[in-house]
Amino acid sequence: MNILVTNDDGIDSPGIMALVQALRTVGTVTVVAPDRQQSAVGHALTVSRPLRATKVRRDGVLFGYAVDGTPADCVKLGISTLLSERPDILVSGINHGANTSINIMYSGTVSAATEGMMLGVPSMAVSIDSLDYRTDCEVAARYAAEIASKLLSLGMPDDTLLNVNVPALAQEQIHGIKVTRQGVSGWEDNYERRKDPMGREYFWLSGNYLVRDTNTDSDEGAMKAGYVSVTPVRYRLTNEEFLTQLTTL
Amino acid sequence: MNILVTNDDGIDSPGIMALVQALRTVGTVTVVAPDRQQSAVGHALTVSRPLRATKVRRDGVLFGYAVDGTPADCVKLGISTLLSERPDILVSGINHGANTSINIMYSGTVSAATEGMMLGVPSMAVSIDSLDYRTDCEVAARYAAEIASKLLSLGMPDDTLLNVNVPALAQEQIHGIKVTRQGVSGWEDNYERRKDPMGREYFWLSGNYLVRDTNTDSDEGAMKAGYVSVTPVRYRLTNEEFLTQLTTL
Repeated sequence: MNILVTNDDGIDSPGIMALVQALRTVGTVTVVAPDRQQSAVGHALTVSRPLRATKVRRDGVLFGYAVDGTPADCVKLGISTLLSERPDILVSGINHGANTSINIMYSGTVSAATEGMMLGVPSMAVSIDSLDYRTDCEVAARYAAEIASKLLSLGMPDDTLLNVNVPALAQEQIHGIKVTRQGVSGWEDNYERRKDPMGREYFWLSGNYLVRDTNTDSDEGAMKAGYVSVTPVRYRLTNEEFLTQLTTL
Repeated sequence: MNILVTNDDGIDSPGIMALVQALRTVGTVTVVAPDRQQSAVGHALTVSRPLRATKVRRDGVLFGYAVDGTPADCVKLGISTLLSERPDILVSGINHGANTSINIMYSGTVSAATEGMMLGVPSMAVSIDSLDYRTDCEVAARYAAEIASKLLSLGMPDDTLLNVNVPALAQEQIHGIKVTRQGVSGWEDNYERRKDPMGREYFWLSGNYLVRDTNTDSDEGAMKAGYVSVTPVRYRLTNEEFLTQLTTL
């Protein structure tokens, strides 16, 4: 099985290292990842400037390609141009920081998996519930490899990817895998208003995350209760129920 | 009615000018828009640097704020910080270039409306089917104002926005408004491989758009047949049908 791996934390992040190592037990891994941190870029594409791809070697062998673009750029450039063979599956991550509830919308990690699905490659995103780069990703990587090994046999619809969120816990503290819904937790926006050394005003985003999901049916709730959360996320967005009511226009 | 207007083509684009003018017949308009073109940024947020907002005056009065960020940044900063009153509705556009089918995923215009909904403000995105900045946006702006005036009475679910696409036609050539589904047209990726003056390789995205929708039930099909397409787009992404089948994990 040929596996394309990407992320949004950049090709040097510990999360992608752990993921690649675990996935090598499942198939042949090729990495195409951003050359630097790309958090909160969502599904951005680079259209107004060219991209560069640099071969990255580790331990004397080709590890992958570092691209000066977004996660979605990496997937497009990888599948269309850099890879000699079309990947069988795509795994994006392991992201440092959960991608649950509303955060799916902003996530470069999830958007890379969305782009994979849009290009017809069964895809999954993996995140760990810790923003600390020193957090060990081995347990999360093992779960990622286990789910990746089953990805082709799940009968995933072609508009749906799997969004996996793993607690930052030791193996024995994890209760297992739980299929969940996207939760409804969100951000309360706050911008700190400051002055620069020239006295000009600027704003810096510092939101508060409002946890509204405690039910283990939700991604957030399951993860916080010690489960590996797996959410089937679709990218066809029509609200079919409301569509039939929309007759007053 | 207080109306927040934003876009992704930037505060100086003809599309936003036409939209503001038309919406002034419906309510009080405040503009918070990017200070430059931000196409294909999707739902990107600026988190690693601060934002600046510059007051823009036109004809001696305050037109709005130009923000050095993405459309989603503009919505967040506008609603949380810059506006003295919470807007009743948000209108994003008028984008030069249709945002139909797969393009919804990449669209800064649509993402601004998604961000508005996520913050609880009924929102719509408006695009015109022409990439040419000289294309007259008056007809599209009139339709936008008409739909905006009804937005609060439609009973929109709180996870759903309206995505409006208007043909670049004269009023008498437009057949009316049609409620549609997101279509399935997509891009065939192509990266041109070139060498820079130093002989180093780079890649430039130049995809082919593959029209797969001709049915007027789809956004693309309706627009191409001369209708103003209105698609209810949701941002809660769980695939509920597949979730119940996902028992093999």
